[in-house]
Amino acid sequence: MEVRELGEFGLIERIGRLAGLERSASGAGVVLGIGDDAALLRPRAGHDVVVSADAFVEGVHFRFDHETPRLAGSRAAVAALSDLAAMGALPLGLTLSLSVPPRAETRVVLGLVRGLVEQAGQHGAPLIGGNVARSRSLELHLTALGEVARGKALRRHRARLGDRLFVSGPLGRSALERARGRIRHLPEPRLALGQALARSRRVSACIDLSDGLIADLGHLCAASGVGARLDASAVPRPRGFAAACRRSGADPQRLVLSGGEDYELLFALRGTQDVPVSIRRLAGPQLACVGRLAAGPLELVGTAGRMPPQPGWRHF
Amino acid sequence: MEVRELGEFGLIERIGRLAGLERSASGAGVVLGIGDDAALLRPRAGHDVVVSADAFVEGVHFRFDHETPRLAGSRAAVAALSDLAAMGALPLGLTLSLSVPPRAETRVVLGLVRGLVEQAGQHGAPLIGGNVARSRSLELHLTALGEVARGKALRRHRARLGDRLFVSGPLGRSALERARGRIRHLPEPRLALGQALARSRRVSACIDLSDGLIADLGHLCAASGVGARLDASAVPRPRGFAAACRRSGADPQRLVLSGGEDYELLFALRGTQDVPVSIRRLAGPQLACVGRLAAGPLELVGTAGRMPPQPGWRHF
Repeated sequence: MEVRELGEFGLIERIGRLAGLERSASGAGVVLGIGDDAALLRPRAGHDVVVSADAFVEGVHFRFDHETPRLAGSRAAVAALSDLAAMGALPLGLTLSLSVPPRAETRVVLGLVRGLVEQAGQHGAPLIGGNVARSRSLELHLTALGEVARGKALRRHRARLGDRLFVSGPLGRSALERARGRIRHLPEPRLALGQALARSRRVSACIDLSDGLIADLGHLCAASGVGARLDASAVPRPRGFAAACRRSGADPQRLVLSGGEDYELLFALRGTQDVPVSIRRLAGPQLACVGRLAAGPLELVGTAGRMPPQPGWRHF
Repeated sequence: MEVRELGEFGLIERIGRLAGLERSASGAGVVLGIGDDAALLRPRAGHDVVVSADAFVEGVHFRFDHETPRLAGSRAAVAALSDLAAMGALPLGLTLSLSVPPRAETRVVLGLVRGLVEQAGQHGAPLIGGNVARSRSLELHLTALGEVARGKALRRHRARLGDRLFVSGPLGRSALERARGRIRHLPEPRLALGQALARSRRVSACIDLSDGLIADLGHLCAASGVGARLDASAVPRPRGFAAACRRSGADPQRLVLSGGEDYELLFALRGTQDVPVSIRRLAGPQLACVGRLAAGPLELVGTAGRMPPQPGWRHF
């Protein structure tokens, strides 16, 4: 069945039902969800509201010959929630503005929404509202909402010369799957880790790795007004990555440094002591120091020396 | 120049500059705007956060042979803020997830954003964040954020049998302009009025008139589990509306009852006393009682008797 046969209000009703199935499991900060002119959130006292907008466009961010609608919807949720993780926030909820071609298959559209709602619900972010509009393009526009204690949000701009740089886990797997045209792996938004980083006074800056390590490190450096020395050989990689890249004819270095969509956290740490145990525990065994902030432009070591030709994803 | 020549980060930078120009004028509740992984809002103590998602799609919600990019962007802001008005909320900020065809004219895209940012800024809603993505379709996906005192949000579902129905101003002008293919009028989101309605205990329900009076009254009735008797002859019309419709060959009744996008408020009032003076003053001289809530289905009087064939806008 096509969406136009179901009708706008039929589609909204089906989405509302999917959202309702997940709602009971989460949503302590939600006063009012779907169904009125707007939703109502109640952050805890002493907390600010964290707001991030993200888009997932068919043919750009997902393709149904590469993955199921449900996985694509789940990945959209991960991308949106990862921005909350990067700020050290606890999720409160999610809105979805959905663009739908009238001839889109209802099964496909609801698959996307189901994946989105399930994944977001598992991380405490119920779908609290949204919009449905006719379009030539199938698109999910998400706004992720969370809360963070006042003054405790992780930022990009407070890193200083000499701070060490850490990556919370292996990079490159999402890019390899995209290169192979077969996406199966769902990254995890590092929410608990982000919250722990926000509690530590030694963490001076943080960003999530959505565009690729080089590109996102560039954002962090630009915001902080510093450069960095990045050791490519220290960046953690998935198990069996070199072999998998060989089989696919992909360049592992480029996927690791510029691949994107891994949603690990990149953070800067002050001082020379070890990483705090609470952070180490939440990050897991592949947490790695990948360099440090330095004067001058971004410098790459531990590799043939050249920067990857493609610094990260660009929309145009 | 086309957007692809400017590049993604060039476009984001230009949007950030437009947002910055307006930011100083507003944004008391904004702790952090554009530029990090997410924005930070701080609602006043004792207030909930109000969240509403809305979309504006080229060819569906706006067409450049009907209006300037700047006016289209302004109308997008009004539509988003009107949902806050319908909840009785004070605006805090706005996010924009922008879908852009790479060959779109930079001038057009920035015109849209300029109209959006100016209009939202005038109502105390600075642009606090967003996203830019490549797409086949030019689309603005907005999330409006506001605050409302706890327990004071206007809702749709508390109207009761016998409550009188009021419309805050004239309907039909937007629909007439759309029918003529020449849009010049910018409606006003009724924010101050919504806030006054939220303070009154006699207001039992409220909705903004975005889809059309019949359709939106239907939403209010469905949420409240009641029907209504609507007096079509009592619905306020713009000055000179009958003549303007005659010149355009348009059916005034249909435009008034089903036109949509006027963004006046429809509210239900308990008791038999006059409308409170504070509300009357903010609503203005065309505030009108247009019927009352009643048992049974929606009944239309004060007209030839038939319901308009088209109850309101449907996306499919």
